[in-house]
Amino acid sequence: MADGFDSRHGGQGASRRAFLKGSVAAVGGAAAVAAGAAAAAEGDPLILEVQEWASGLGDGVDAVPYGMPIRFESDVIRRHVEWLTADPRSSVNFTPIHALDGTITPQGCAFERHHSGAIELSKQDYRLMINGLVERPLVFTYWDLERFPRENHVYFCECAANTGMEWKGAQLNGAQFTHGMIHNMEYTGVPLRILLEEAGVKPEGSWIYVEGHDASSNGRSIPMEKALDDVLVAFKANGEALRKEHGYPVRLVVPGWEGNMWVKWLRRVEVTDGPVESREETSKYTDLLANGIARKWTWVMDAKSVITSPSPQSPILHGPGPLVITGLAWSGHGAITRVDVSLDGGVSWQQARLAQPGQPKALTRFYLEIDWDGSEMFLQSRAMDETGYVQPTKDELRAIRGTNSIYHNNGIQTWWVKPNGEAENVEVS
Amino acid sequence: MADGFDSRHGGQGASRRAFLKGSVAAVGGAAAVAAGAAAAAEGDPLILEVQEWASGLGDGVDAVPYGMPIRFESDVIRRHVEWLTADPRSSVNFTPIHALDGTITPQGCAFERHHSGAIELSKQDYRLMINGLVERPLVFTYWDLERFPRENHVYFCECAANTGMEWKGAQLNGAQFTHGMIHNMEYTGVPLRILLEEAGVKPEGSWIYVEGHDASSNGRSIPMEKALDDVLVAFKANGEALRKEHGYPVRLVVPGWEGNMWVKWLRRVEVTDGPVESREETSKYTDLLANGIARKWTWVMDAKSVITSPSPQSPILHGPGPLVITGLAWSGHGAITRVDVSLDGGVSWQQARLAQPGQPKALTRFYLEIDWDGSEMFLQSRAMDETGYVQPTKDELRAIRGTNSIYHNNGIQTWWVKPNGEAENVEVS
Repeated sequence: MADGFDSRHGGQGASRRAFLKGSVAAVGGAAAVAAGAAAAAEGDPLILEVQEWASGLGDGVDAVPYGMPIRFESDVIRRHVEWLTADPRSSVNFTPIHALDGTITPQGCAFERHHSGAIELSKQDYRLMINGLVERPLVFTYWDLERFPRENHVYFCECAANTGMEWKGAQLNGAQFTHGMIHNMEYTGVPLRILLEEAGVKPEGSWIYVEGHDASSNGRSIPMEKALDDVLVAFKANGEALRKEHGYPVRLVVPGWEGNMWVKWLRRVEVTDGPVESREETSKYTDLLANGIARKWTWVMDAKSVITSPSPQSPILHGPGPLVITGLAWSGHGAITRVDVSLDGGVSWQQARLAQPGQPKALTRFYLEIDWDGSEMFLQSRAMDETGYVQPTKDELRAIRGTNSIYHNNGIQTWWVKPNGEAENVEVS
Repeated sequence: MADGFDSRHGGQGASRRAFLKGSVAAVGGAAAVAAGAAAAAEGDPLILEVQEWASGLGDGVDAVPYGMPIRFESDVIRRHVEWLTADPRSSVNFTPIHALDGTITPQGCAFERHHSGAIELSKQDYRLMINGLVERPLVFTYWDLERFPRENHVYFCECAANTGMEWKGAQLNGAQFTHGMIHNMEYTGVPLRILLEEAGVKPEGSWIYVEGHDASSNGRSIPMEKALDDVLVAFKANGEALRKEHGYPVRLVVPGWEGNMWVKWLRRVEVTDGPVESREETSKYTDLLANGIARKWTWVMDAKSVITSPSPQSPILHGPGPLVITGLAWSGHGAITRVDVSLDGGVSWQQARLAQPGQPKALTRFYLEIDWDGSEMFLQSRAMDETGYVQPTKDELRAIRGTNSIYHNNGIQTWWVKPNGEAENVEVS
């Protein structure tokens, strides 16, 4: 850390209250400041100022019963792109993944995708019906659900349209916009399997049809095999109640599968003997190929990754020298086993460090620490999952799927990092 | 779930807009409602009302850039007990653990303990000094820290005084108040070891002294062995920046050790050749035994558990039948390996189900599903950790430590659950 720290931070509203008066003004980097501190240790007088924050009392524990981020972080928010859709109540906003680290997404900044807006539904008003091909049709209150055995799992939820604008080329300038239709939370809920067992699925019941309490109802068909596997009827995320915009009081969690199937404000589970072929799985959430045929039932989110920093919204704020490259990787098929990073647009690759061993159907944080020489980079990341699947390039995807698609773009992303530290969304081939 | 559901929920502000008109009004439980639904399947007309929330649009994705809990959850907040301390700026509030599930604590409702209030400190103003017995004293800016390799870990942070009021007997009526000085988050930060290596610890450097930027400074001594082990200089929690009240922009994370050592707004790490014996480790944060001798250097939080529901603030809201008992367990010595639950005040025990395998120095969620017969229970939980340590009874603790202590009460907690579902903090012996 001996060199290369510039004064950019100082220029961004530096305080007049310096910690070590005279040292910070003169230099910026740790080692350079250290020279001043070392001198102090040898007896050279350091003029110390009493800082405002150390000379009085702060807020009491009665100040904020439920806290929000500090005002300095007011740019770490969900963002909406107005031209993407006709109405913000049938639209999407994006998780600020460029500014986050670790793997957990706080509910407050986790992306939203609604088809008719986020509704307000109380626990008192809440009901869940299970009907169709069952021995005993049931209606559960919210509190009925709390009487069944619960499980806890961390899972990612990714909208099928995440990175969808990239089918036709690099478009939106920031990881938040290209890859921010994703969040990762610890869910608490009742396995749907247990509720279906309570209702008694008839032998001919081979699918379920799920829908929400909102006006769109957002109905989707799910094969019984998945319904009986790891699907949760969830009421908590990251320990607390689901937020309104994430389906309060109850949503479906369909691990590894596209977010559209994670029905919010879950109203009904109908057991059927086939798929319903609803609007949301025919006109939407299918992938139109170049030959005019649409792929359907493309439920699983394939292995994917993105570098979150540096990236267009998270430029390098220092000169050459130590640089932490970090990002996220995930797979709907299971655990991430490896992530590689390229600095030269895919010509050569280095294995990144996984912060923790990959967990099934959950985000994995990766890091690569480099000694940046200050020259331009074409940063890419490439995820591999436990099935052996390797994240493809965008061109490899297009060769098979054409460019008509909106959904399921898991191609390798490229950030062009310039010598001044700024980054831009580009494609290399 | 066939019986025993009473109308209490309906009585707590039930809506006039029933999902299935006529059925909900008549009955409450799933199976009973099912009879109505089953009848419908046989052709009996069900009168369906269009619900308000299904007949219009909800909030758009531009409504809330950073979200808060829905208004119906306004009681899931940190709470402060006025008479505990003289001033709320040198006090504590409590995590609403009775209302949470899973293991992650959202920052917004994670307990606070300040000695001179929560200060507001920007990244621009932030500095961290490492000095004392080092080759090169260093001062780091916030952005310097971001250039070092990071790690991610989920850890619990428990105030040494958690459950402190219970030394003299059952006092505060609720898990939030008896056990809520704890939270559990995914931290991202730089291992302190790496920063100490950067400064170069001299051979005689055997301890560190850490202090914060706040007026109290809250200085604590930590043996070098721990400092070089798993201590983190953390800047993110649950993916996002630390909240103001949790030490923004940088706090120390001292896994498994008492929360007082997790210095917030971390200002300085001084390498020393012995402990400083500061106020916070002599007059405070020591344990006065019955013989007048005080135990000191009681850093590690021993294995402990508590049932969060049912509990005084989370009564049983239904009659006899299926009941989910749940709680939290943790150990500063490593992973929880087992939790037992007693319904009869410790006479007999049943092994609870761990939601996930225990993780070192992190909260573990446990569940026990029972068929409650409606009679009174004396609920207890007993944690065991990977060292073989078993959580003691309060009487066993008192036999060794007396009743003068404030800190390190990890005794078994008892909730007296009455036939009406209400619960009370009691002791059994």
